[in-house]
Amino acid sequence: MNKYTKTDEWCIIEEGFKPQNQCSSESIFSIGNGRMGQRANFEEHYSGETLLGTYIGGVYYNDKTRVGWWKNGYPEYFAKVLNAPNWTGINININGEVLDLAVCRTENFVRILNMKEGLLERSFTAETPNGKRVKVSCKRFISMADKEAALISYSVKPLNFSGEITFTPYIDGDVFNKDANYDEQFWESYQSEADNGSATLYAVTKKTAFHVCLGMKYSFETKSTIKKTEIISKTKFVGNVITIDAIEGEEIRMIKYVAVLSSLNHEPNNLQNDTQNALARITAQTFEAHFEAHKKIWAEIWKHSDIVINGDVEAQQGIRFNIFQLNQTYTGDDNRLNIGPKGFTGEKYGGGTYWDTEAYCVPFYLATASAEVGRNLLLYRYKQLDKAIENAEKLGFSGGAALYPMVTMDGTESHNEWEITFEEIHRNGAIAYAIHNYVNYTGDEEYITTYGLPVLIGISRFWAQRCTWSEEREMYVMLGITGPNEYENNVNNNWYTNKIAKWCMEYTMFCVEKYAEDKSEALKAIFSKYNFDREKEVTQWRKICENMYLPENKTKGIFLQQDNYLDKEQILAADLPSEIRPLNQHWSWDRILRSCFIKQADVLQGIFFFEEEYDLDTICRNFDFYEARTVHESSLSPCVHSILASKLGKSEKAYELYLRTARLDLDDYNNEAHEGLHITSMAGTWMSVVMGFGGLRVRNGVLCLEPVIPAAWQSYTFNVFFRDHNLKVQVSKNKCSILNNSEKPLNICFKNNIIQIQANQNKEL
Amino acid sequence: MNKYTKTDEWCIIEEGFKPQNQCSSESIFSIGNGRMGQRANFEEHYSGETLLGTYIGGVYYNDKTRVGWWKNGYPEYFAKVLNAPNWTGINININGEVLDLAVCRTENFVRILNMKEGLLERSFTAETPNGKRVKVSCKRFISMADKEAALISYSVKPLNFSGEITFTPYIDGDVFNKDANYDEQFWESYQSEADNGSATLYAVTKKTAFHVCLGMKYSFETKSTIKKTEIISKTKFVGNVITIDAIEGEEIRMIKYVAVLSSLNHEPNNLQNDTQNALARITAQTFEAHFEAHKKIWAEIWKHSDIVINGDVEAQQGIRFNIFQLNQTYTGDDNRLNIGPKGFTGEKYGGGTYWDTEAYCVPFYLATASAEVGRNLLLYRYKQLDKAIENAEKLGFSGGAALYPMVTMDGTESHNEWEITFEEIHRNGAIAYAIHNYVNYTGDEEYITTYGLPVLIGISRFWAQRCTWSEEREMYVMLGITGPNEYENNVNNNWYTNKIAKWCMEYTMFCVEKYAEDKSEALKAIFSKYNFDREKEVTQWRKICENMYLPENKTKGIFLQQDNYLDKEQILAADLPSEIRPLNQHWSWDRILRSCFIKQADVLQGIFFFEEEYDLDTICRNFDFYEARTVHESSLSPCVHSILASKLGKSEKAYELYLRTARLDLDDYNNEAHEGLHITSMAGTWMSVVMGFGGLRVRNGVLCLEPVIPAAWQSYTFNVFFRDHNLKVQVSKNKCSILNNSEKPLNICFKNNIIQIQANQNKEL
Repeated sequence: MNKYTKTDEWCIIEEGFKPQNQCSSESIFSIGNGRMGQRANFEEHYSGETLLGTYIGGVYYNDKTRVGWWKNGYPEYFAKVLNAPNWTGINININGEVLDLAVCRTENFVRILNMKEGLLERSFTAETPNGKRVKVSCKRFISMADKEAALISYSVKPLNFSGEITFTPYIDGDVFNKDANYDEQFWESYQSEADNGSATLYAVTKKTAFHVCLGMKYSFETKSTIKKTEIISKTKFVGNVITIDAIEGEEIRMIKYVAVLSSLNHEPNNLQNDTQNALARITAQTFEAHFEAHKKIWAEIWKHSDIVINGDVEAQQGIRFNIFQLNQTYTGDDNRLNIGPKGFTGEKYGGGTYWDTEAYCVPFYLATASAEVGRNLLLYRYKQLDKAIENAEKLGFSGGAALYPMVTMDGTESHNEWEITFEEIHRNGAIAYAIHNYVNYTGDEEYITTYGLPVLIGISRFWAQRCTWSEEREMYVMLGITGPNEYENNVNNNWYTNKIAKWCMEYTMFCVEKYAEDKSEALKAIFSKYNFDREKEVTQWRKICENMYLPENKTKGIFLQQDNYLDKEQILAADLPSEIRPLNQHWSWDRILRSCFIKQADVLQGIFFFEEEYDLDTICRNFDFYEARTVHESSLSPCVHSILASKLGKSEKAYELYLRTARLDLDDYNNEAHEGLHITSMAGTWMSVVMGFGGLRVRNGVLCLEPVIPAAWQSYTFNVFFRDHNLKVQVSKNKCSILNNSEKPLNICFKNNIIQIQANQNKEL
Repeated sequence: MNKYTKTDEWCIIEEGFKPQNQCSSESIFSIGNGRMGQRANFEEHYSGETLLGTYIGGVYYNDKTRVGWWKNGYPEYFAKVLNAPNWTGINININGEVLDLAVCRTENFVRILNMKEGLLERSFTAETPNGKRVKVSCKRFISMADKEAALISYSVKPLNFSGEITFTPYIDGDVFNKDANYDEQFWESYQSEADNGSATLYAVTKKTAFHVCLGMKYSFETKSTIKKTEIISKTKFVGNVITIDAIEGEEIRMIKYVAVLSSLNHEPNNLQNDTQNALARITAQTFEAHFEAHKKIWAEIWKHSDIVINGDVEAQQGIRFNIFQLNQTYTGDDNRLNIGPKGFTGEKYGGGTYWDTEAYCVPFYLATASAEVGRNLLLYRYKQLDKAIENAEKLGFSGGAALYPMVTMDGTESHNEWEITFEEIHRNGAIAYAIHNYVNYTGDEEYITTYGLPVLIGISRFWAQRCTWSEEREMYVMLGITGPNEYENNVNNNWYTNKIAKWCMEYTMFCVEKYAEDKSEALKAIFSKYNFDREKEVTQWRKICENMYLPENKTKGIFLQQDNYLDKEQILAADLPSEIRPLNQHWSWDRILRSCFIKQADVLQGIFFFEEEYDLDTICRNFDFYEARTVHESSLSPCVHSILASKLGKSEKAYELYLRTARLDLDDYNNEAHEGLHITSMAGTWMSVVMGFGGLRVRNGVLCLEPVIPAAWQSYTFNVFFRDHNLKVQVSKNKCSILNNSEKPLNICFKNNIIQIQANQNKEL
């Protein structure tokens, strides 16, 4: 826990410069526009501890796998997000001294992340070792309006002297990933070009051959005289050096215009030209004009996704921070991109796609953005179906069975821990579930008969082969599994995995039946393309579903996390001394595995997904049993528990669990914010509010709400899209008002009653 | 499978030079004297594929652990046997051309490993690219008589020319391990010295600071004239260059005398001096005199350990090869040394000590060498007890609980796979079992009350903490286990582990009771030193032993390898198509784990250890069930099965399984001989003959024999020590004769009848 930012409804504010917080602040104050992102590294030279991070969505490197002991089936590479050429740099030299906050005395340091407007601001007064004092103010943003543009306004005012100040805006391609298995640089084939007033740097990633080109120009606003401009043009580093005769008390403001282009959106051959054109386009508008356009888009985003909490500023700031970061990470206009666990805020987890996307992020985007955004998240997996089939083949499956990877950039598996890569296969289930979730939420049934069914068939085929018949039990079992609770590995009959496997096959069969008549042509095409033998395969799936073993303990009335869970010593998390928490920092791995302690929702994840199948008593018994044994050492854990607690009317528990996620990074609960933010779990926080407190569900195409309000809040308001409608739901202590912000009436289910809300009506309930 | 050597009773013979076999031959023709060993690398320069291997027992390097994903509790280092400075080198230059078998045309190449005398010989005729022909003959051995001496006789005869031939005997310290996690050189602080006629090289291992010094001298026997001698003295490379005016048809013979000393046996400060003294000592005798002394010791070794097989030369050669390699690897005079799975023949497995030593090698050395040798193998572990306690503490155990490492050089754990390091804990049991085995075989009960009990107490304490009470079963269970069958990981209640854990506690309690009166002072000292609370701890152990869960299936009448073994699809190994064997080269790791296929004896290992507790029917049911599911993909597997098959009267099966081990390396069944030989499993082959066919056991201090003979053999003879006796047992088709080669009569149990054999009597039975 390290809370050092000020509480504010719309801003994250850091006052006073503390070098020990710099890496955390670089994460927390990150900015991005869905296509690229940037940690809050200082523009000027900084010799203290820092983690440079410039990320371009979809540009990655295949880092050769590093393991202690190779296991058959491991992937050759781990695809990693790249630390790309750094475009933020503006070195400042003050009368012969480098401006470096690790060296200078700093006063009045303020860093602000304005979440409403997507702006990072910083100002401070610095005194050099020789006593020269300057006031620096800077602002930067990555434009939501022009996805290739980033802009920096950097102002220096000499306070106690007149003299030479040089500005060196640059682009530095000599960058490394901190996380590199063999300490190599991931970039090659540099081409650099610098002119008076502009510079471009072109580089290509090794192996994956992504081409990127970054260009910069600058302009000055100052009464002081520009004395000299020079060019720096090294292979991996380009820039300009502008020497100014600075006048005491007169501010010198530089605007750095940056264009970031890649071969994802441009022909490699045209990339350098296109960068020049982009620079021309970007410099044609002022910093302020760009910022206006950028702000406008943020206003639109907030209109649809904001949550307003009255009576709890910390909660307000926390939830907005989460929504803000999610929208910076993924904007949904490019189905080649996805959401890494750290987004654009760090290198950890390699920036790849996990099941986090389907289990946590999809619900957020379904409710806060247009259907296209959710659809693009689904299409990402659809387009990787062939690779998922290849991946399954590599592990010995056949006949078009698909196993989606645990971690991926392009559909190829990256992860290399056998108990995860080969065994944490429930991820396949989440991908199928997201299709159901999307169609159920948006009503876009067309998706099933175009893109959904091939994926569902591939996944069901996988389950059908992965389940084996146990002569002993006379049932189908699933052996060698790691469930969502990664604190148990290689178990048998993980209830969640068996359940979701069964559900996948049932849902696929349901879709096949449902569209058999209406969409028989579309289905025929899919069946033929994927060699689907309807009768034979459906018969097999039905047989498995009817005889699938789902472990439970009838005495306790609970589903069993896995066959032998009750063989473990049963201790409650509350009885663990605080000095050994978190367990993963205090216990050897085997001790964790042998213990009954649960990292994140496992049985409860299944109950959350399929809650309609269970009565409240069953949910309650399982919740009481498993939550008490859960240590929530995954950031993805508390939200599911919080939602279920809300459902069960355990409001104090729900709020307690909500608090664990809401400000996880902002208050740096686990002292790991320096590595980057928990982007995907931020969606879980949103779920805790909207699905938990708000009780939002979609059942048979009907939006349902069953709101409660935490005792600490006066009211809260959330916005959701639902099909053609846009709703604003405000929940107060004693009432709830729902505004149907659209031109059509809407039937919703409010606390189990169907009510109609007229177009543009605000209904009080 | 790659059999290219000729069959011979006493020699391994390779005729004709095939570069593709060179690395395998380097392993197969390895020589050693227990203190050091050397792969059969060519003396002269060889530019083809080779694996240089010079090993000094007990000299290792702590290579920084390399893993993909760190788990709490992993060791910092993997201690690895070092490739030490190479002392074998003698470069030959023929009239300006390098003698290099990768370049020259080679005829009449013969390489012979004379196992009776411990001599490696090689001869060939080579023609250089310029047409110069030479005949080369060389011999080398590492002296069993002077453990610091190695000698090479290297002769060159020009066949079709007179001209300059240079000999460059050298010591090369610029050596690397092929298996280095971070590609670094493991040696530093070189000091080199070369004089006319001699050279020494001194080097220190990084981190572990072992000092070694190698010295060489040479002499010539020739009618040709030595024209010039020069010195090479580089930091890491020393040698002499001797130029000779060679006369056509006249052989030039060089003797290279080598001394290899290390800080294990010398003060580092004196090491260089001591090396000079050793060289003086070594050169004081001729090659032939050294060889005589060396041969004499081998004759003694063979006298006690030889197995003679009549009627099957391949079997004869195979078993002698195994006995020879074991005796080269470990001679038992230094309890700081142990037996790595590859001995001195390769780098694989890091050269560390595994449970192989206790389970397989101890029985071999007990029967074929003096009791001191077995005792030294046990003392190795006794001396590492403190580290085993530390190791257990690292994993969360306390109160003096000891967990011996999976792999070690000095008692510290080296291995870093969680499912092995933390879970394959049955190794602790084998270490306790070896104590029982040693005392039972030798009658040295004193060992228990001096060194055995502390180890037994530490191990029993570990088991007592590792077993947990299952409320569900109302029994003690052991969760998260990898048994000897490493094709199942992280299982619950591995029968073998539960059984041996129970046995360890029972045996410890038995020893405490047994010596409570006679040796009360010795026990008191141990109890006090190890804070042993006899009443409390014994009570706890008894409670666990009485309530230990040992899974079995009553219907099938078998013990269960682990709780869920019968949930697996039951397929027999015989039904696997041959093209997917071995499974570990064809199946992904998870598929292997999920399958019912067994890598090596697991339940059957336990039945082998504790066979007296089970009736023949029980043994037979378990054997039939498990052997049919065993793929024997560990070299340690067939022997235990072969022994049990012999016991069960399944003599064809026993012989079939024996054949899988007997010539494993010699015929390179698994195409892996190039990596080194399977030294520890060679002891298993010996066990298959003596304990399997011979039926040798020691029960209650009585040697028992129940010999059978494979149909393919006419007779076989083995030699065993037993307490004060030395027996020669010859088994023919219809009779068995036992020679009591000692001055005292001996009662033995022959096929369940007690018979007495008088001193020096040969009894026909």
